[in-house]
Amino acid sequence: MIINGVTIDATFAEAFPMKATRAIITAQNEKWAMIAAQAMTGFATSVIACGCEAGIERTLRPNETPDGRPGVSVMIFAMGGKGLAKQLETRAGQCVLTSPTSALFAGIDSDTKIPLGKNLRYFGDGFQIAKVINGKRYWRIPVMDGEFLAEATTGQVNAVGGGNFLVLAESQPQALAACEAAIDAMKQVPNVIMPFPGGVVRSGSKVGSKYKALNASTNDAFCPTLKGMTQSELPANCESVMEIVIDGLTKEDIDNAMRVGIQAVCNLGAEQGITRISAGNYGGKLGPFHFHLQEIMA
Amino acid sequence: MIINGVTIDATFAEAFPMKATRAIITAQNEKWAMIAAQAMTGFATSVIACGCEAGIERTLRPNETPDGRPGVSVMIFAMGGKGLAKQLETRAGQCVLTSPTSALFAGIDSDTKIPLGKNLRYFGDGFQIAKVINGKRYWRIPVMDGEFLAEATTGQVNAVGGGNFLVLAESQPQALAACEAAIDAMKQVPNVIMPFPGGVVRSGSKVGSKYKALNASTNDAFCPTLKGMTQSELPANCESVMEIVIDGLTKEDIDNAMRVGIQAVCNLGAEQGITRISAGNYGGKLGPFHFHLQEIMA
Amino acid sequence: MIINGVTIDATFAEAFPMKATRAIITAQNEKWAMIAAQAMTGFATSVIACGCEAGIERTLRPNETPDGRPGVSVMIFAMGGKGLAKQLETRAGQCVLTSPTSALFAGIDSDTKIPLGKNLRYFGDGFQIAKVINGKRYWRIPVMDGEFLAEATTGQVNAVGGGNFLVLAESQPQALAACEAAIDAMKQVPNVIMPFPGGVVRSGSKVGSKYKALNASTNDAFCPTLKGMTQSELPANCESVMEIVIDGLTKEDIDNAMRVGIQAVCNLGAEQGITRISAGNYGGKLGPFHFHLQEIMA
Amino acid sequence: MIINGVTIDATFAEAFPMKATRAIITAQNEKWAMIAAQAMTGFATSVIACGCEAGIERTLRPNETPDGRPGVSVMIFAMGGKGLAKQLETRAGQCVLTSPTSALFAGIDSDTKIPLGKNLRYFGDGFQIAKVINGKRYWRIPVMDGEFLAEATTGQVNAVGGGNFLVLAESQPQALAACEAAIDAMKQVPNVIMPFPGGVVRSGSKVGSKYKALNASTNDAFCPTLKGMTQSELPANCESVMEIVIDGLTKEDIDNAMRVGIQAVCNLGAEQGITRISAGNYGGKLGPFHFHLQEIMA
Repeated sequence: MIINGVTIDATFAEAFPMKATRAIITAQNEKWAMIAAQAMTGFATSVIACGCEAGIERTLRPNETPDGRPGVSVMIFAMGGKGLAKQLETRAGQCVLTSPTSALFAGIDSDTKIPLGKNLRYFGDGFQIAKVINGKRYWRIPVMDGEFLAEATTGQVNAVGGGNFLVLAESQPQALAACEAAIDAMKQVPNVIMPFPGGVVRSGSKVGSKYKALNASTNDAFCPTLKGMTQSELPANCESVMEIVIDGLTKEDIDNAMRVGIQAVCNLGAEQGITRISAGNYGGKLGPFHFHLQEIMA
Repeated sequence: MIINGVTIDATFAEAFPMKATRAIITAQNEKWAMIAAQAMTGFATSVIACGCEAGIERTLRPNETPDGRPGVSVMIFAMGGKGLAKQLETRAGQCVLTSPTSALFAGIDSDTKIPLGKNLRYFGDGFQIAKVINGKRYWRIPVMDGEFLAEATTGQVNAVGGGNFLVLAESQPQALAACEAAIDAMKQVPNVIMPFPGGVVRSGSKVGSKYKALNASTNDAFCPTLKGMTQSELPANCESVMEIVIDGLTKEDIDNAMRVGIQAVCNLGAEQGITRISAGNYGGKLGPFHFHLQEIMA
Repeated sequence: MIINGVTIDATFAEAFPMKATRAIITAQNEKWAMIAAQAMTGFATSVIACGCEAGIERTLRPNETPDGRPGVSVMIFAMGGKGLAKQLETRAGQCVLTSPTSALFAGIDSDTKIPLGKNLRYFGDGFQIAKVINGKRYWRIPVMDGEFLAEATTGQVNAVGGGNFLVLAESQPQALAACEAAIDAMKQVPNVIMPFPGGVVRSGSKVGSKYKALNASTNDAFCPTLKGMTQSELPANCESVMEIVIDGLTKEDIDNAMRVGIQAVCNLGAEQGITRISAGNYGGKLGPFHFHLQEIMA
Repeated sequence: MIINGVTIDATFAEAFPMKATRAIITAQNEKWAMIAAQAMTGFATSVIACGCEAGIERTLRPNETPDGRPGVSVMIFAMGGKGLAKQLETRAGQCVLTSPTSALFAGIDSDTKIPLGKNLRYFGDGFQIAKVINGKRYWRIPVMDGEFLAEATTGQVNAVGGGNFLVLAESQPQALAACEAAIDAMKQVPNVIMPFPGGVVRSGSKVGSKYKALNASTNDAFCPTLKGMTQSELPANCESVMEIVIDGLTKEDIDNAMRVGIQAVCNLGAEQGITRISAGNYGGKLGPFHFHLQEIMA
């Protein structure tokens, strides 16, 4: 399949089940809601070393938030519910409870609840007050700038992590330009985050390493400087590859994000140095979710 | 002491020895250097729950960086050298190695070296190459977008953490406006970071809690909603308090940051609802560094 | 009427008929579409001295733009169609034609067409090429970075200019905080712009001046420093007033924007130093559109 | 001359005398100083159609501004002193006087003074008050949010407009990446602005047109799509050209800006698709300032 001169590989991305949650941060204005959200979702690119994958989903209009203030929705993904709950609580406690004028609300419904303000309330040293409105429980925790309002719990849901595609380009600036266009488009898609810095990862990895202590290492088949030294997957005219990784609530959400992202890359086209779109998988044996590029773009 | 109608309390901030390091992230442009720096220093507000306190010191001109590209300097503070090294390596590996077009360099000299690219190099799966220029060792690690260049080590130095001051105001918007002005001024001071979200923390804590499992709890004496319920330190007309915490390489660096920050707050003055400047301490018995507000502003 | 402690004055804003147009700027990424849009809509706060009132309406997803790239929609308002056309053409020629990777499209349908690329095409020095797709005419103009694609015309419509409301607060930081919250909310409303810097104007004017050459002068009745020297409209506890001016396609669009903006201000409430919401009018004799605050907030 | 694989043409940029001024805008915080500065310097890319060329020079630390608040310095260039004064006054009146919490100060000394607050004061309708501090005259003009403080005059100096260089690249994303790197570097150089959107212009022009009414038209010799249809200056592998135009206080300031900008482009190098650096001139007969690329980079 070729779109605007860009080859879409007959391959697929392979993704895994994860647990996810969403929270809504509000503040006196959008700037401060965003500051808290950025702090809370920082250092969260990869679940193995960061404990979770997290990102900003989108900004929320005042009429979309529980307290009528500007807000930001954040999503966190982890391998299991226990790790997810721990990450949510620690990050909320360090980065939202502390952030001027903020409040914190559930962002998703589910029968499985995980604590949001439920344990953070103890920071109030007994001065905290519970409040139930329309069947939802909130905690009002006295802090120096006034009060930190936090809903008691938010929902935990099954989700999908590790959707991805690779952008092959003739040079680094072209690969980056294509990924920037893709991220501009994908950040408008609901229910997904792209957890790497700015949404893009340039250090794709393969399973295994020549060093026994390591489980993963550079994906040498896609490293342009190694074309002559390894079994390369890269065509002669490809000098830079970048990857976009997507975590989403459902397979369909990741389908949507991949579609608009790949389309944005292809809009730049072969004329702008984009040569191929590929994807990363483990042969299809490990992850139950398969995203076939040509089906998505059909 | 009164400056522009604002009372400067006869008290002091109390700070502790920490270990610190600095690294320089460069990228194809300032935007992407900043994206990597924000990811790397996210979720790093407080050393206890985040493992370190980290922040962006400033942007660097191309002629200030080792590879002549736009850059950002980041600083990380931890209680000891071992924790510092671990945080630096994990955060660099997750947030800089992964970030498109980035390179990573030492940002401070010291006899005590900690690994920067030294261990990250193993990601290269044997394809990495060492390079020594002017006596400094670098690693060239093949990645998908080209090559990740990382200096082998950076310096670790003794530093000071926990400088602080409190802004007391008649309302939350006034406290926030004052802190924004202070942070605008303080981020221009070299050798310091303000690790909380946007530089400001609104949930100051006291040592101890009525809940045995907790070591700290809300600083009720400075919570405006608790004026009638606890031994309050707040005057009747104070309805919001925010704090700025500063980590710095030396006591003098924190002195400078506190001075310009407090001055910026006082420029707004009593007319704009700023009532007092105070500071947090533990009676002077725990932290060897004391920052007397009135001396700093003399 | 009182909302969250804030008095809503029994008064109205008075607005006037204007002509308006909308254009869509796309670019390689959102950053550069926004850069062109900011340049094009700069220095456009007031129609009298700037020739038009202009602003950014919102960012557009790639699937919302004619060429599938990230985009920004801008709106321009003027007193008449001739002035509008001139401003559109000059600003597009100086700020979009010149801006790297940009393209320019119609943003609104109307039987009345005004030139977008129609005259700019002559810059192509005879090398430009017309292209008709689905009945719409485009010009492809050769430029140094490739080609500037511009739709021949966009629509001109009747519109409404000068909707407004005033925020009265106890201090400047509180008035500003309230206006920031209002603008965060109002920028999400379609079909409107707030043409002043950051959406806010602090130098409201009255008709007439003691200097004969001037038609307008400071609205002394709303100047807090003049309370003792003029017939003031301000209560004793009001020390700062800011205004938000809105231009919109229809009266209903301005109604919507005023509603969400005033609501955002009232969410801060009397507790945060917001005392009253008022509005500016000329006695109702000059402008045919009246926006009664209490009706809007009912 | 070849730097990192990039050919530096044996040519020169040709520039003209202009008049320039600088003003300092301060505000409650950096965000609002920047908002006013962006509005004031918007729609100011080219002196012919915009009346002036204007831009933001840099942000200022509170200790660098006359009132100790965060600030931004803006520069305006025009062909003569009269036009410069008119643009300064209109833009300051529309975009700074109106902007919440702002104040306005002289940014450059000179025996030739032009009005800053001198005429804007009449907006005060007789309520304005003069104030002389250290021999400098200021006006305090009552406005709704408090008071607009404006220094009476600022300096007007001789300056140089039209320094420039061209970046030739293999594709549009590569040209843009190179220009972004150049602008990141150049915006750190004092005494210069790059007046086009984001600092870059992609629609370079030649003198004259086949249409008699026009004085300038697309620089067809540098348009990649016209290689086969005109006497092209472009090599076969060049598919995109962008230009950076610089206005500066002196020839040396422009020298400095060109040097760091061209260096930043060359740092990307031929490997990233940058092929040549050139410059625009009129044969050296019209503009008295010549910037020889190879001398600057020697």
